[in-house]
Amino acid sequence: MKDIIEQYIRDVMDFPKPGVVFKDITPLLLEPKIMKLTTAELLALVDKEIDKVVGIEARGFFFGTLLADRLDAGFVPVRKPGKLPYKTYEETYELEYGTDALAMHVDAIQEGDRVLIHDDVLATGGTALAAAKLVERAGGKVVMFNFLIELTYLKGREKLKGYDVRSLLKY
Amino acid sequence: MKDIIEQYIRDVMDFPKPGVVFKDITPLLLEPKIMKLTTAELLALVDKEIDKVVGIEARGFFFGTLLADRLDAGFVPVRKPGKLPYKTYEETYELEYGTDALAMHVDAIQEGDRVLIHDDVLATGGTALAAAKLVERAGGKVVMFNFLIELTYLKGREKLKGYDVRSLLKY
Repeated sequence: MKDIIEQYIRDVMDFPKPGVVFKDITPLLLEPKIMKLTTAELLALVDKEIDKVVGIEARGFFFGTLLADRLDAGFVPVRKPGKLPYKTYEETYELEYGTDALAMHVDAIQEGDRVLIHDDVLATGGTALAAAKLVERAGGKVVMFNFLIELTYLKGREKLKGYDVRSLLKY
Repeated sequence: MKDIIEQYIRDVMDFPKPGVVFKDITPLLLEPKIMKLTTAELLALVDKEIDKVVGIEARGFFFGTLLADRLDAGFVPVRKPGKLPYKTYEETYELEYGTDALAMHVDAIQEGDRVLIHDDVLATGGTALAAAKLVERAGGKVVMFNFLIELTYLKGREKLKGYDVRSLLKY
């Protein structure tokens, strides 16, 4: 099934900057059958009870909402600061040059919630780790990371050491 | 059912700027039953064949993906310029002060596609109209606008005259 899904992922050269090959999942979203197949395959990686699915802005919202739907879990959007209207926790993280930050509503996760964190791509892992810290600050337990694509050569998995990291497609 | 859904929409004062009351749908996303109920109610507004669901960045991605799933339609994200990796069409539109723009991949919509455009909130209608122009530029037909919330006092519906505009909750 993975080789079918891979056919709908497009390599875009030099995005967002020269030398980077970007994995574009939008062709996959255009095909309802492939979208459902991908959702089912992501779901097959989940072997624990999940109360909340966290989706990372913005491409993590696509399969994040679908996973929440299939798992009968709540959905929590994690966004850039200033985008969420209510009170938030914020986490700053390092980039190659400078820093960036993520925010989550303070009432999104309850003490003891079992949380799955989803994003389309695991790259260096900085964003994913920041999302985990937000969940933990709110008292939640990160039960699993669930990615559609893992760029193994960027070693994001090492940054997420100690967590259960699952990914459907590895490059 | 609408009164149940309304209980999960939070008014946030002075966001994104003083004097504005923001309709925050994130409490609704936290409750799987209410998320499914809302999806079903949005779906009940649809009485035509749909090939593609367009979701407007970023809150339009939540129920946009779920609607595409239920309708067995493709999903097309419409985003701010610079966010989509492949070749795009762009549409500029007027704001109260200045302009803004939206982009869509050139291969997202095929000639003759019947398109539903979804966003969480219909406000002044500027963004929604720009999304419609993108769809039409690609040869698609905007069969319906489908909003979770309509802020009727902002008269967005007038800007979308000639289109079939459906909304679940009116304020």
